[in-house]
Amino acid sequence: FTSAKAVPDAVLGEHFHSKGKIFKRSVQETRVQDDIPDTQRDCTDKDNPKYPPTVTETTERLSDLRDVMAEYNVSAYIIPTEDWHNECYRRRQWITGFSGSSGLAIVTHNQSALWTDGRYYLQAEQQLDCNWILMRSSDDGTPSAWDWLEDVLPYGTSNEPIIVAFDPTLLSISTYNNYADAFKESKDKSIIMQSIQNNLIDEVWEEPECSNNPLLIMEKKWAGVDWWDKVEDIQGLMKAADVEMMVLHALDDTAWLFNLRGSDVHNTAVFFSYTIIELDKTTLYIKNTTELVTDEIGKHLLTDMKFCQNTPQIHKCLHINEYDDFQNELRDATKSDIINKVWISTSASYAVYGNVPENKQYSAAIPIQEMKAVKNDKEVDGMINGYNQDSVAVIEFLHWIEGAVTNEEIEVTEISAGNKVEEFRRKQEDFVSPSFDPISGFGPNGAVIHYSSTDETNVKITTDDMYLLDSGGQYKCGATTDITRTMHFGVPKDSHKEAYTRVLMGAIDLALAIFPEGTSGSRLDVHARQHLWDNGWTYLHGTGHGIGAMLNVHEGPFSINSRNTESLQPNVFLSDEPGYYEDNDYGVRLETIIRVVKADTPNNFGGQDYYTFRAVTLVPFDPKLIKYSLMSPRQIDWLNRYNARIRTEIGPLVQAENVEAYDWLIKMTVHVTHPDLDDHPDSPANKMHQSIASYVAMFAAFVIATLFITI
Amino acid sequence: FTSAKAVPDAVLGEHFHSKGKIFKRSVQETRVQDDIPDTQRDCTDKDNPKYPPTVTETTERLSDLRDVMAEYNVSAYIIPTEDWHNECYRRRQWITGFSGSSGLAIVTHNQSALWTDGRYYLQAEQQLDCNWILMRSSDDGTPSAWDWLEDVLPYGTSNEPIIVAFDPTLLSISTYNNYADAFKESKDKSIIMQSIQNNLIDEVWEEPECSNNPLLIMEKKWAGVDWWDKVEDIQGLMKAADVEMMVLHALDDTAWLFNLRGSDVHNTAVFFSYTIIELDKTTLYIKNTTELVTDEIGKHLLTDMKFCQNTPQIHKCLHINEYDDFQNELRDATKSDIINKVWISTSASYAVYGNVPENKQYSAAIPIQEMKAVKNDKEVDGMINGYNQDSVAVIEFLHWIEGAVTNEEIEVTEISAGNKVEEFRRKQEDFVSPSFDPISGFGPNGAVIHYSSTDETNVKITTDDMYLLDSGGQYKCGATTDITRTMHFGVPKDSHKEAYTRVLMGAIDLALAIFPEGTSGSRLDVHARQHLWDNGWTYLHGTGHGIGAMLNVHEGPFSINSRNTESLQPNVFLSDEPGYYEDNDYGVRLETIIRVVKADTPNNFGGQDYYTFRAVTLVPFDPKLIKYSLMSPRQIDWLNRYNARIRTEIGPLVQAENVEAYDWLIKMTVHVTHPDLDDHPDSPANKMHQSIASYVAMFAAFVIATLFITI
Repeated sequence: FTSAKAVPDAVLGEHFHSKGKIFKRSVQETRVQDDIPDTQRDCTDKDNPKYPPTVTETTERLSDLRDVMAEYNVSAYIIPTEDWHNECYRRRQWITGFSGSSGLAIVTHNQSALWTDGRYYLQAEQQLDCNWILMRSSDDGTPSAWDWLEDVLPYGTSNEPIIVAFDPTLLSISTYNNYADAFKESKDKSIIMQSIQNNLIDEVWEEPECSNNPLLIMEKKWAGVDWWDKVEDIQGLMKAADVEMMVLHALDDTAWLFNLRGSDVHNTAVFFSYTIIELDKTTLYIKNTTELVTDEIGKHLLTDMKFCQNTPQIHKCLHINEYDDFQNELRDATKSDIINKVWISTSASYAVYGNVPENKQYSAAIPIQEMKAVKNDKEVDGMINGYNQDSVAVIEFLHWIEGAVTNEEIEVTEISAGNKVEEFRRKQEDFVSPSFDPISGFGPNGAVIHYSSTDETNVKITTDDMYLLDSGGQYKCGATTDITRTMHFGVPKDSHKEAYTRVLMGAIDLALAIFPEGTSGSRLDVHARQHLWDNGWTYLHGTGHGIGAMLNVHEGPFSINSRNTESLQPNVFLSDEPGYYEDNDYGVRLETIIRVVKADTPNNFGGQDYYTFRAVTLVPFDPKLIKYSLMSPRQIDWLNRYNARIRTEIGPLVQAENVEAYDWLIKMTVHVTHPDLDDHPDSPANKMHQSIASYVAMFAAFVIATLFITI
Repeated sequence: FTSAKAVPDAVLGEHFHSKGKIFKRSVQETRVQDDIPDTQRDCTDKDNPKYPPTVTETTERLSDLRDVMAEYNVSAYIIPTEDWHNECYRRRQWITGFSGSSGLAIVTHNQSALWTDGRYYLQAEQQLDCNWILMRSSDDGTPSAWDWLEDVLPYGTSNEPIIVAFDPTLLSISTYNNYADAFKESKDKSIIMQSIQNNLIDEVWEEPECSNNPLLIMEKKWAGVDWWDKVEDIQGLMKAADVEMMVLHALDDTAWLFNLRGSDVHNTAVFFSYTIIELDKTTLYIKNTTELVTDEIGKHLLTDMKFCQNTPQIHKCLHINEYDDFQNELRDATKSDIINKVWISTSASYAVYGNVPENKQYSAAIPIQEMKAVKNDKEVDGMINGYNQDSVAVIEFLHWIEGAVTNEEIEVTEISAGNKVEEFRRKQEDFVSPSFDPISGFGPNGAVIHYSSTDETNVKITTDDMYLLDSGGQYKCGATTDITRTMHFGVPKDSHKEAYTRVLMGAIDLALAIFPEGTSGSRLDVHARQHLWDNGWTYLHGTGHGIGAMLNVHEGPFSINSRNTESLQPNVFLSDEPGYYEDNDYGVRLETIIRVVKADTPNNFGGQDYYTFRAVTLVPFDPKLIKYSLMSPRQIDWLNRYNARIRTEIGPLVQAENVEAYDWLIKMTVHVTHPDLDDHPDSPANKMHQSIASYVAMFAAFVIATLFITI
C-alpha cells in the first residue's frame, strides 16, 4: 500500500523554477487528450462526454453547492482530505466521485478541480466526470491550489475582497498558511481566506452516520510500557521545552499513548479522540464516554483518579471528557495564566490553533510520532509475531489462487480473491480486521496504483496476464501488516519478467543497504529505483512508508522517498515497495516490510553505528517472473538467504496448517544460482565441465582404440 | 577540491532532535582529548599547552581585539568568511591562525570559537592555539553559532542589551536573520545584533594591500553569447517577475554576465565588482575604472553608450562607475518611484539589503547562477578543451613523479610536487593560473582533506606511503579544472587497496547512474558512499560540486550531496569525488569532473528524458591500488571504457609532447577483466583451462606409457 510520490508536490505548494524563470504548465496540458481507453472519461467532445460506468456524475451536486456558496458570498470553497476526525464523512468523495485516499477538491463559481498524486491519476480518470479538471500534483509544472485560485479568481477590492472559504476543523494550520501567505503576496487581487463554521457540503448532502465502536486494550505484553509511563516521559519533554500543555490531535497518537485501540476509522485501529496533556493531569476526550468506558477500560485508564492528588504519581492522573466538549475546553483552559506555552502539532487544524492564544502557541512535531515509530522490544515482538501470522496466511492464499486459476476449479475474480485472502487471514489467531481494502488488480487494473475493484471493474483472473495483490491486516499482538506480491499464473511475457526483475532488484538493493546513523530515507530511495531508471522506467509513488503496531498502515515520521529527512533508527519498520506500472497493460509491485537493525560492519568510522534492514514479511517472490541473468550475485545471495528464512521461520507454521501450501512454499524457495557462476546449469564453468567430459571421453576412446590397434 | 559536508551544518543553524528532545552536545565533547599526535595542538594541560610549529599564537591579537570590543561596548564580535568582496583581507585567518577556506570565528570577552566543517578538523587542530574552541560543525550535536552565543553570553536588560556586533558588508542577510531570529526567540536574555561600519579587526591589525588586476575578455568563441544578449534575457526574466532592478553581488555573476575575467581573488578568475541591471540600462561598478577600462575593454563593453537612447537595443546600454560608489548609488537609485521591486540574492550582504527599502526587496536566487552552471554549446567545447589540456598535464606529472620517487633521481616533497604539476600545466596553451592552491599530501597529511603544505609540515614523498594530489587550473578557453588522484609509489598495504577500491567503486557507480529529469544531486549521493558504508566507512564532505567555465572552482546551484535539491540538467559539470581518510595515517580521494548528458534508455516512462554522466577528466586511476575482485563486472566495464577514452582522446596529445609519458599512459590503461570472469588470469574458468591442460597432459602421458608398454 503505497505512500505519496517522491517529488515536490504541487498541492504542498512548490513553484517550479527552470532557468530562473517561474513556469506554470497550463492546466490543459495536464489532461489526457488522445488514445483514451473505454475505462476512462473522454472529454474530447465537451457537449457529449463519454463515461465508463465508474464515473459519478456531479453536475447537480456542484450546482447545489454553488447555490450555497452564493448565499455565503463565497467565490471558492476548499474540500480537503486531510483529517481523520472527519474520516467517516467522505465529503470530497461525494462532491467529486473520486474515492482515492489522497485528494483536494476546490470549487469556484464556474470551475472545479481535483488535485491528486501519481498513485491516483488513472483512478481519477476513471471516476471523475468532465466537470472536473484533474490536477496531477506529482508532475512538474502543475499549479499549486493557491496559484490556480489566484489565476482563475476575479479581482476583489480591499472593501469587497474575493473570499476563499473552508471548514476550520478540516484544514491544517500549515495548509491554511500556504494559502494565506500566497494570497498576501498577490495583494493586488484582494483574495482572502475565511473559515465558515458550517460545512457547506453538509448543507447540500445527506450526512452519513458515523460509527462509534468499543475500545480494545493493547495488553502490556505487546505494548511494553504502561500508558502512565509514556505520559511521564512526555511530561519530561514538555518540561524541557518549557511547555505546560500538549494537544494530541492525531488519532493514532492518542491510541498509542493509552495502549488502546478502536475501529472508528475503516480498517484502522483508532477511535475518535483528542488528548490534552498538562504537567499535573491528562484529559482524554472520546465520544459517548459512558458507553465506551466499561469497567475494564476504566480500570485500564485508572479513572478512579486516586493519583490526581499524588505528586510522585501525578502522571497517572487521567480525566475523561466528552469529545464534543474538546474545542471549548481547550479555549477555556488556555486562557489560564499558568498556561504560557502550548505544544501543538503543525498538522493540527485551523480550529485547534484558533482556540489557543497566538502568543502561547508552540508549533512543533509531537514527540509521540517518533516514540510510536521506534518500536520497543515488546512492540518488535508483536510486529514479528503478527508478520509471521500474516506471511502464513498470504502463502496459503498464493498457493490456493495458483491452483484455482491454473486448474480453473473455481472462477476467481479480483473481488473474490480479495475476500479469499481475508478468509485466510481470519484463520490466524490474532487477526482483527483488514488494515485497508485490498488492491486486487488483474492485467490493466494492476497498473492503477491504489485500485479498488468494484462491480463495474471486476474481472476474472486468468492465466493470461499479471495479477497484483496488495493487502494487509490488523493483528491484536500489535501489528499492522501490508504486503504486495505480483504473480503470473500462465506464461509471462519477457516484458513482464523484465519489469518484475528490475522491481525486485531495487527492493533487494534497498534491503541490502548499510548506512551510518544520521542517514535519512531520502538518501536511500535511489537504491530501489536505479535498476528501473537504467531502463528508462520509474514509479510515481514513494518507496517506503512507516507502519504501525496495530495502528495506521501509513505512519510517520520515517519514510523512504526523495524528501524524508528523518534519521532512521533501529526498530523503525518501513515498507520496501518499488513498482512499475505500464498504463492500461499491467502493474508490478513488490512490497516487503523491513525493520531497521544494527549492522555488523568491519569498521565504525567516527565511532558511529551502522544500520541495515531485516525483512519481517516472509513470503516468496515468483521464480517464474525472475530473470536471474539481470541480477548481481549479491542480489541472488540476498534472495537465497530470504528464501532460506521463509523455509525455516514460516515453513513449520504453514506445514502445521496446510501441507500442500508447504510443498508449494518449498517449490517457490528453491536455492538459485547466478547464470554466470559456476554452479548454475547454464554457467560457462559448467559448460567447461561438459567440455572436460568430452575431452576425457575422447581420450578414453583414443586410448582404447590405440590399445585395440596395438593388440 | 571538495565542497562542504553532506549533513546539516551547525553553522547553518540546525538544532538536533533525537527522540523528540533537543540535544546539544557539550562543547568539550567535541574536542580531541587523548592520543594527540605531535602535529596537533595539545591543550590537555591548560597552563602548558603543546603546539606544533603550524600553530599561530593568538593571545595578543585576541587581547587587542577585546580592548576594541570594550571601547565599542560589544560583548561578542563575529568574524565570518562568507564574502569574496573582502577575500584579500583574510581577517578570520589572522585572528584565528586557521587558513581553511570555510570558517566562522566568534570572540566574546572571555571565549573564542571557530566553526568549521569536516574537511578542516585536522587542519584546525594543527593551526589553532588553545585560545580557540573548535566547533565541528559537520557533527551532530555541535551548537550553532547563535545557540552557543545564547549559552555563553550574560543576561542583558531591555535598556542595556548584550550586543553581538558584525561588519554589515561581511555578513549575508540570511546569516544575519538566523542570528536575529534566534535572539528574538530567547528574548529574556536581551541579546541584539548590531552592525558596526568600522571593521574591528581593521582597528588592530595592519591592513594588507589588495591587488587590482587587468581584465581579460572571454572571447565569443568560448563564451558563446554576447553579454548584451545575456542582459536581454535577464531583463526578460525581470519583467516576468515585475522587477525593475536586479543587484549582482557575487563576483562570478558579473564576470560571467560580461564575458570578462580577472584575477583579483587568488586563483579565481574574477574581479571586484557589483552590477545593477535595470530595464533600460545596466551599471557595472569596478575599481579604478580609468585604468581597467582600456580601449579594448571599452569596445567590448560598448562604453560609447550609443545604444542608451535606442529602445530596441537598450540591453546594450552600459554605464561603468566606481566600485566604491556602489552602495551610495544603490541607496539613491532605489529611492526612485519607478523602482518598486529590487531582485537581490539571498546571499547578498546585510549592507546591500540596508540600502534597499524593505518594501522593495525581492529576495530570491539570481537566475545567472543557473544560467552560468548550465553550459551552452561553446562553453561545453571550452570545458572539454581545457580538461583535455589539463589531463595531458596531469598525466605528464604522474609519469614524472612516479619516476622521480621510485628512482630517487630527485628529492620530491609535497611542496615541490605541487609546483611541478603547475609547471606541467603552464606548458598547456590556454593555462592562465592554478584554480586553487594544490592539496599535496603524503601519508598522514593526505588525511587532511583541504591540506596546504607549509615549510613546517612539508615532507619528502617516498615509496613508503600513499600520496594524494588535488589540483587544478584556469584555462582561458573557458575552463576551471579540478582533479584528484591518489597514488602509491611502492607496495601498498591491503588496507590502502581496500580504501582506494571502495572509493573508486563509489566514483564509478555515481558516474554510471542513469536518472530521470527532475532528479537532484541529493538523490544520487548514496551511490558514491554505499561501498564505503558497507565497510563501516564514510567521508565528511560532499560528493560533488559544480565548477565554472574559467570562474569559481566551486559553483552553485547544482551539487551532489545529501542536501542539494536542484534538478540536474544536461551540460551541468560536477565533480565526482568520494574519499576515505584514516586520520594520522593516509587519505584517498579520487576526483573526476563529469558532465550531465542525455542517456539513451530503452524506454522513457512518462515521456521524460533520462540523463547520465560523461567524464571530462581523462586521467588514469592507479591499477596497483585496485582490488578487482571487489568490483562488479559493470564497474570494471566502466573502467575499461574510461581507459579506452584516455588512450583515444588524450593519448595522441600526450604522445606528441612526451613519448615516455605516453608509454606510461598505455601501461596504466591496460584492459582488465573481472577475476570471476573467464578471461581473467585468476578466474575459475581459467583455472579450469589449466586443469584441462593437466588432464590432457596426463592422458597423453598415459597413452604414451600404454603405447610403450604395449610396444
